[in-house]
Amino acid sequence: MLTRKFWRLDARPQGHDYAAALTLVEEDVAAPGPGEVLVEAHYLSMDPGVRVWMSPREDGYSPPIALGTPMQGQFLGRVLQSAHPDFAEGDLVRGFGHWATHSTVDPSLSGLVRLDENVADIRDHFGVLGLNGWTALCGLVDVLGVRSGETVLVSAAAGSTGSIVCQIARNMGCRVIGIAGSDEKCAWLTDTLGISAAINYRRQDVAAELARIEGGIDAYFENVGGPLLDAALPAMALKGRIGICGLIEGYTSDTGAPGPARFDQVLMKRLTIRGIFLPDFMAEGRDYAAPLRAMYDAGELAGEFDETRGIENVLEAFTRLMTGRNTGKVVVAL
Amino acid sequence: MLTRKFWRLDARPQGHDYAAALTLVEEDVAAPGPGEVLVEAHYLSMDPGVRVWMSPREDGYSPPIALGTPMQGQFLGRVLQSAHPDFAEGDLVRGFGHWATHSTVDPSLSGLVRLDENVADIRDHFGVLGLNGWTALCGLVDVLGVRSGETVLVSAAAGSTGSIVCQIARNMGCRVIGIAGSDEKCAWLTDTLGISAAINYRRQDVAAELARIEGGIDAYFENVGGPLLDAALPAMALKGRIGICGLIEGYTSDTGAPGPARFDQVLMKRLTIRGIFLPDFMAEGRDYAAPLRAMYDAGELAGEFDETRGIENVLEAFTRLMTGRNTGKVVVAL
Repeated sequence: MLTRKFWRLDARPQGHDYAAALTLVEEDVAAPGPGEVLVEAHYLSMDPGVRVWMSPREDGYSPPIALGTPMQGQFLGRVLQSAHPDFAEGDLVRGFGHWATHSTVDPSLSGLVRLDENVADIRDHFGVLGLNGWTALCGLVDVLGVRSGETVLVSAAAGSTGSIVCQIARNMGCRVIGIAGSDEKCAWLTDTLGISAAINYRRQDVAAELARIEGGIDAYFENVGGPLLDAALPAMALKGRIGICGLIEGYTSDTGAPGPARFDQVLMKRLTIRGIFLPDFMAEGRDYAAPLRAMYDAGELAGEFDETRGIENVLEAFTRLMTGRNTGKVVVAL
Repeated sequence: MLTRKFWRLDARPQGHDYAAALTLVEEDVAAPGPGEVLVEAHYLSMDPGVRVWMSPREDGYSPPIALGTPMQGQFLGRVLQSAHPDFAEGDLVRGFGHWATHSTVDPSLSGLVRLDENVADIRDHFGVLGLNGWTALCGLVDVLGVRSGETVLVSAAAGSTGSIVCQIARNMGCRVIGIAGSDEKCAWLTDTLGISAAINYRRQDVAAELARIEGGIDAYFENVGGPLLDAALPAMALKGRIGICGLIEGYTSDTGAPGPARFDQVLMKRLTIRGIFLPDFMAEGRDYAAPLRAMYDAGELAGEFDETRGIENVLEAFTRLMTGRNTGKVVVAL
């Protein structure tokens, strides 16, 4: 009999103490039922949004994950057994399942998609060609309405979504300023990704740096919230736009982070603040695959990875992500 | 020689202690210079926004009013002497000038306009036919994009702009819920203005009342900020819109009020928050006069006034406004 290992959510985590809340469990895997597909995961994606589902909050995107059930997240792997007509053994697929070596899923509920094998690195199906890439393009174009020549600020700029936002905005001909948490990340942003400037929020006075931006910030792609949003608000241009993609500062709180101290700037600067939530645009039929693939094939969009090996090290990888120690997309290789 | 009385801003006020900051002064009035117009004010408009100009904040709509100079605000009156070809003695006019019995203005800098004498009450040129009416319509239609059948929440609903927002949204066929500060105001909102429901924030649990709204709030016309915005955020519908017209809660602070505690809802509910600032739309050529006048002539839009008499009582009237003791538009009759 095939067995799998998965992480079970046994308690609501306090802060970043995930070890006290999750347990690695082994169990037998049954053959997939009618319409189901059994996938062996080669990679797991670590995404900050799942932290909200770990909490007891009822007002997040999704209801809390029930205690005593498998922790949920994205996988990338190959079909082991299929009882669904659209999927065959050996197919390379991506979908939502468990933090597990194997997931048995209903394709229509798990967003299971077959992937192109003809890419430089299959992990790019998580990052630049995956939901991070789609979110970046959706936020920049459909939420923020960014145009060539504008000044774009990106927080968590060295992170999975942030680093793609930086590259796309750079490709669009914007002046791109990134905020990241180390001098190494800042150097990577300016030297490798080629954005205009980077600010190390752990060492520099972000508000003072942003205040020096001539003409102000036209569009802010926000992944963090808290003090960074406070620093950015007074530096926005008149009629500037802020897209809220993530508020990771507040994810470890059961009630959310405090609101921006300089919220008055919304009125004084006539700003627009909008939430960025990719599934809304997907539900409207938007498809971001083609433009992302074109940039990728042209060498204008590259993935960067922070890889951890082994199902037993998932919590370490997730903690690296949530405490901002990663550069690029955090994945666990199984 | 003609003399005038005006209020001079001598210090930055602390809280609502306006008496310590402003002084009533008498001075001679010279004849208007070339291109200028001398107006005798019959009414002064009390507007919360001017509180920001009294403060030392450099990041408001306008720079702070210089200490030792006349306090600024809107007047309604008649031309006494004109050295401008477009205005003649006796014209009924409105514009931005001083908290004064007389103002000498350059029409192009003060937004001086000639007014229609043929109205039921000339004070309506300040309210339903004035900047309050324009702001209400601009916010509802051009910022919030309100449509018939939607649920619209209005704070400071018995105030000058709020009471007009309530009437226009009611006319549009919306379910309108107002928040006000007394049972008398709430009764006026439901019984006289005919909106769906009103909440007395001094007596009722606003968050609990709003949580009961079936389907959530589609559009929130916000005049107050602070705890009311905190209460409204979790009650917003998915993809709801919030228009920030005023944040009066923060105007007495030199640095602004704290941000909304439930700012996370912007992301979780994919809300859009925008500042409402009428001059931006006027600069784009938008004109709200005709639709407002049509509602007014049809008896579907009525002004309500909180009138104080005498230039010496301006500070009392302004304090009434800033502490929410008024129902309708606060004016001072001279």
